[in-house]
Amino acid sequence: MSNTIGKLFTFTSFGESHGVGIGGIVDGCPAGVELDEAFVQQELDRRKPGQSKIATPRKEDDKVEFLSGIFEGRTTGTPIAFVIWNQNQHSKDYDHLKEVYRPSHADYTYEQKYGVRDHRGGGRSSARETASRVVAGAIAKLVLRKLGVGITAFTSQVGPIRMTAGIQEARLDAVEDNIVRCPEAETAQQMIDYISELKKNGDSTGGTISCVIKGVPAGWGEPIFDKLQARLAFAMLSINASHGFDYGAGFDGVAMKGSQMNDPFTAVGGKVSTTTNHSGGIQGGISNGQDIYFRVLFKPVATISQKQSTITTGMEATELQARGRHDPCVLPRAVPIVEAMAAITLLDLYLSQSNPI
Amino acid sequence: MSNTIGKLFTFTSFGESHGVGIGGIVDGCPAGVELDEAFVQQELDRRKPGQSKIATPRKEDDKVEFLSGIFEGRTTGTPIAFVIWNQNQHSKDYDHLKEVYRPSHADYTYEQKYGVRDHRGGGRSSARETASRVVAGAIAKLVLRKLGVGITAFTSQVGPIRMTAGIQEARLDAVEDNIVRCPEAETAQQMIDYISELKKNGDSTGGTISCVIKGVPAGWGEPIFDKLQARLAFAMLSINASHGFDYGAGFDGVAMKGSQMNDPFTAVGGKVSTTTNHSGGIQGGISNGQDIYFRVLFKPVATISQKQSTITTGMEATELQARGRHDPCVLPRAVPIVEAMAAITLLDLYLSQSNPI
Amino acid sequence: MSNTIGKLFTFTSFGESHGVGIGGIVDGCPAGVELDEAFVQQELDRRKPGQSKIATPRKEDDKVEFLSGIFEGRTTGTPIAFVIWNQNQHSKDYDHLKEVYRPSHADYTYEQKYGVRDHRGGGRSSARETASRVVAGAIAKLVLRKLGVGITAFTSQVGPIRMTAGIQEARLDAVEDNIVRCPEAETAQQMIDYISELKKNGDSTGGTISCVIKGVPAGWGEPIFDKLQARLAFAMLSINASHGFDYGAGFDGVAMKGSQMNDPFTAVGGKVSTTTNHSGGIQGGISNGQDIYFRVLFKPVATISQKQSTITTGMEATELQARGRHDPCVLPRAVPIVEAMAAITLLDLYLSQSNPI
Amino acid sequence: MSNTIGKLFTFTSFGESHGVGIGGIVDGCPAGVELDEAFVQQELDRRKPGQSKIATPRKEDDKVEFLSGIFEGRTTGTPIAFVIWNQNQHSKDYDHLKEVYRPSHADYTYEQKYGVRDHRGGGRSSARETASRVVAGAIAKLVLRKLGVGITAFTSQVGPIRMTAGIQEARLDAVEDNIVRCPEAETAQQMIDYISELKKNGDSTGGTISCVIKGVPAGWGEPIFDKLQARLAFAMLSINASHGFDYGAGFDGVAMKGSQMNDPFTAVGGKVSTTTNHSGGIQGGISNGQDIYFRVLFKPVATISQKQSTITTGMEATELQARGRHDPCVLPRAVPIVEAMAAITLLDLYLSQSNPI
Repeated sequence: MSNTIGKLFTFTSFGESHGVGIGGIVDGCPAGVELDEAFVQQELDRRKPGQSKIATPRKEDDKVEFLSGIFEGRTTGTPIAFVIWNQNQHSKDYDHLKEVYRPSHADYTYEQKYGVRDHRGGGRSSARETASRVVAGAIAKLVLRKLGVGITAFTSQVGPIRMTAGIQEARLDAVEDNIVRCPEAETAQQMIDYISELKKNGDSTGGTISCVIKGVPAGWGEPIFDKLQARLAFAMLSINASHGFDYGAGFDGVAMKGSQMNDPFTAVGGKVSTTTNHSGGIQGGISNGQDIYFRVLFKPVATISQKQSTITTGMEATELQARGRHDPCVLPRAVPIVEAMAAITLLDLYLSQSNPI
Repeated sequence: MSNTIGKLFTFTSFGESHGVGIGGIVDGCPAGVELDEAFVQQELDRRKPGQSKIATPRKEDDKVEFLSGIFEGRTTGTPIAFVIWNQNQHSKDYDHLKEVYRPSHADYTYEQKYGVRDHRGGGRSSARETASRVVAGAIAKLVLRKLGVGITAFTSQVGPIRMTAGIQEARLDAVEDNIVRCPEAETAQQMIDYISELKKNGDSTGGTISCVIKGVPAGWGEPIFDKLQARLAFAMLSINASHGFDYGAGFDGVAMKGSQMNDPFTAVGGKVSTTTNHSGGIQGGISNGQDIYFRVLFKPVATISQKQSTITTGMEATELQARGRHDPCVLPRAVPIVEAMAAITLLDLYLSQSNPI
Repeated sequence: MSNTIGKLFTFTSFGESHGVGIGGIVDGCPAGVELDEAFVQQELDRRKPGQSKIATPRKEDDKVEFLSGIFEGRTTGTPIAFVIWNQNQHSKDYDHLKEVYRPSHADYTYEQKYGVRDHRGGGRSSARETASRVVAGAIAKLVLRKLGVGITAFTSQVGPIRMTAGIQEARLDAVEDNIVRCPEAETAQQMIDYISELKKNGDSTGGTISCVIKGVPAGWGEPIFDKLQARLAFAMLSINASHGFDYGAGFDGVAMKGSQMNDPFTAVGGKVSTTTNHSGGIQGGISNGQDIYFRVLFKPVATISQKQSTITTGMEATELQARGRHDPCVLPRAVPIVEAMAAITLLDLYLSQSNPI
Repeated sequence: MSNTIGKLFTFTSFGESHGVGIGGIVDGCPAGVELDEAFVQQELDRRKPGQSKIATPRKEDDKVEFLSGIFEGRTTGTPIAFVIWNQNQHSKDYDHLKEVYRPSHADYTYEQKYGVRDHRGGGRSSARETASRVVAGAIAKLVLRKLGVGITAFTSQVGPIRMTAGIQEARLDAVEDNIVRCPEAETAQQMIDYISELKKNGDSTGGTISCVIKGVPAGWGEPIFDKLQARLAFAMLSINASHGFDYGAGFDGVAMKGSQMNDPFTAVGGKVSTTTNHSGGIQGGISNGQDIYFRVLFKPVATISQKQSTITTGMEATELQARGRHDPCVLPRAVPIVEAMAAITLLDLYLSQSNPI
């Protein structure tokens, strides 16, 4: 198990879907930062289940409770522990899964690895764990905000339905205007319709979330291995159900030639920039001062209501039909998770730079 | 700087393109492994420049010299240091770059970050560094081979030209049959023609490398953060010029529904497998015993012979025309690098598993 | 801040003396271990305040509450989070310390480092934090017990009063026979009398705790840097008020010659041992199968009831007289802390060994 | 194996006593530091064998060769690799040790741990490895010098002969005045006589090295675990033959009462200091701006020329008489090693502080 991420700004996560609670410890947060609890809760609310008609009907009023590291409303430089108590679990819903491996879930691999498995709601492998990431990410965002860095993610594709604008053209202020968190109103409606249709059929879908980061100066990222894009990819691929990552022109630009891909430098008023930004704001693993942007691929939710073939833990063939309450599409709720993991990664890289000599 | 990768099996890299040499230290290699130097050299030769008409004409007979950690032909459990001496550098070729930022190279970001920059051949940011990775990866491969694990990468797309077969259908034994390392003879020829044409025009191209890993048993990967796919993505995105990663069905499968994506379990003769493998051999961040497969996106080589707009270090607009010897397409030479990084990652995850109690 | 210790078996600690609670996350604990909560609580009870007439009269019934990582009484391989809620704090007792730096406490250094300080009971720098270490150590002990490893610490010196027997001759089964945790009855009584006298005078004392570890086979410890003794020293010097560490013959043996210090090897019945054990069970940073033993020095408790000269945060000279409830000697309560840190260290080194190839 | 030390300023060591060479990689060194190679060599010369009549007669002109990380005489922020080639090895001297375990050496434990052992000169476990530490430490010293930090170690005790002055009174400018590196001329002569006598008898001795660090401002050290004293203890106990560590008043002050030990704060001219410094410059794991001082215990050299009882690898009783060239007392040569490890530790802690927000 490796439940800590980061080097100087670290986050250690704990908790199971149907245990006492989930939470974590943020270590290395600079002292003296005002910890705006309302902002943290607001971020959690963007992730919480039951927030719209296209999400799971589970009601979990995820309230974060801080246990340490804050004194008179400010961080003290000591570890910030927090817990989100579990409630509203229907553990009985999962009794039938005790002896069955759900297809494309982590049931089988956890049992193979650990010899034991908390079958209730997926236990540790449940995406419920990502609520803790959102809390840690919100803390990181509060620090990054002071550094002038802003992070905005949005749903850019759901199944076959994709935004018409490219990432760089997206209207970042329109992300929260609809329940699917896509900044194009018309595309958003198509996505919602598509998801609703799938929900009716007991099926699910995946898609892509795009993310734009503004305000990072040139110099963040630690080559050779801890390149900015490598650390972002690591963080994104650690999110449940994520299956891919690209930045800058990305897979869509695979056929571009060097003469098209290269970003010419220009200097206006003593400020260096590039006339295009196919590099996604990163060159040689280090931010170049332009917007950083990337995309994360999510596979369809593995839990569907249709009947599926699988086997029992005793290796007998069986059929499975999910009875839990689940999302037909996680993307709208994954938007704040992508932002959180980006924030955790960026702040750690900022802090990991050598102090000046 | 963060030039060490891994937790128990670690690799620390050093060296600049036009310095004394490059190399590294492999720490945590199990003792008693026969260190087949011929195999290591053979892997290096797959990466070396000048190996074909579509590669850079630079001649670097990269010979690895081991400095420690081996006794009577076997590893001793102590750190294995090695060096590849630099030779055949034409540092003068780079004099004109001392005061110019090459577009989409790391010149500007290194100078911003460190305040100083070795301009000769890109210094530390040069892809020459990856030769050291190939050595470390070859050592990891020797260990993995004893565990029954085999890793094969190949060029699956060059610019607009893509293999017709999917990754899982690729003929892994045909990869080395042509200079572009694509296991489809006809596609390979098209790729070669395309690259040759670009070379003539002083342009460059990117593409994708796919990788298949066979023989990993269920249980490798350390959630929540050190998931197998997260660690693979991290390793791949740390390679020069890489811009994306996906595994399993990947971006191509973005429109699949859950009912299509899910891999049904089956058990034949007491052995669990899945009837499809859209998960790419990984579920919940842990290997499930099926083939692991993923794809890495590479952008076009930034160095092109066409004239480009850029600025000087003094922020004056200027034009640049590369005179160094460079590849129009790095993919054929990047195939062993992808394999090496996969090997380093897998062996570290294997060793990082808890010892049995 | 660096509140995580360990590499594969890690413990991350949180909490302030007068905050909501203290606790931590144990990550990397092998799965399938029966988590004997009664044993954990019993270890905590050995550390708790108010347990005897020579300890602080503070009453803190430190009850541990587990939040994750346990299913049906066994560890699952996932992170084990726990909390000990704070209670019985008399924060008002510390109001007069808000603007004063207590001599030889961490008030001044924390304020210099973080710019902010939770003055209540020392905040994060309070030894209350060590209760969490005892919980993590108890978990490690449960695992080590399965490996046949036993750890016993005891008070070997209090101020000028020292045990007559050497560490290796100590009666380990007699440690819990008296409130000072010294296995020599007569010496123990002298220590108790000495501490009682100091308490009357509002003064305090330090001393040494010795520790014996039995059952570690040859092979634990990871040179060159993570030598067994280096990791033990690191763990011990991280305990509040500890000021020194030695192992084997230690400082007492500083005048021994090589011909006296060396431990001759012998082999009886195919089992290798040494006829003496001045090496303390460690050679070249690796356990040699003999008993491991070491000593930890603790300075006197900094909080005393006598009047002391110091300065205010405004740099005015002032006098300070402690009013909080404190121990005249921490050693009896530090015995389980030394054992805990030894257990955490040993289990991590055991797990960090390479898996067999 | 764990051959890397540090978090942001890291040093990875390699090499065996009788292999090709020893060396390492320093990563995380700030860019732009003038790398004074003469100074590095001078530090190495303080450690080299054969430098005086009381040291081993082995002649090793340890010359360091830098392979990377330096451009035009300055560090570039990239990894600094270096090698010291082995020469003058008399490997034949060790042939008789192939099948014998030397008492209190690492022969037995390495063989138990790794199943294989380079018997020539102790292989990896040889103190020759510490030459690499001196190089890394010299680099750290060059950086610390710019921060106003100076580190001076000296031999404070050899066998029963101890300096009359306390650490804080030692004349730091007199350390290099004699071959034993003790700043009291008369005591130094007694030590030299004592060592010479032992040499004649084929015996050896240990002792203590003390170290004083000046110029560290308040605020270095990362509680709870990475306390300044814990990291120093870790670094010191990783040195070959070291058996103990204490700081401040240390073991000698074990009988001090709290009222004697506590260091009263005082403020003169707006500058905070303490009227005594029993804390050794560290409170709560963080430097307080006073001098940091500590002591390291070294056991006698295990290699002696007297006949010793031991066993063969086949577990037969045998007698051993060393024929290699060895030191009767390592302390004079260990002085620069202690300084080096202190420098590496301090610089890493300095850099590991959070960047300001």
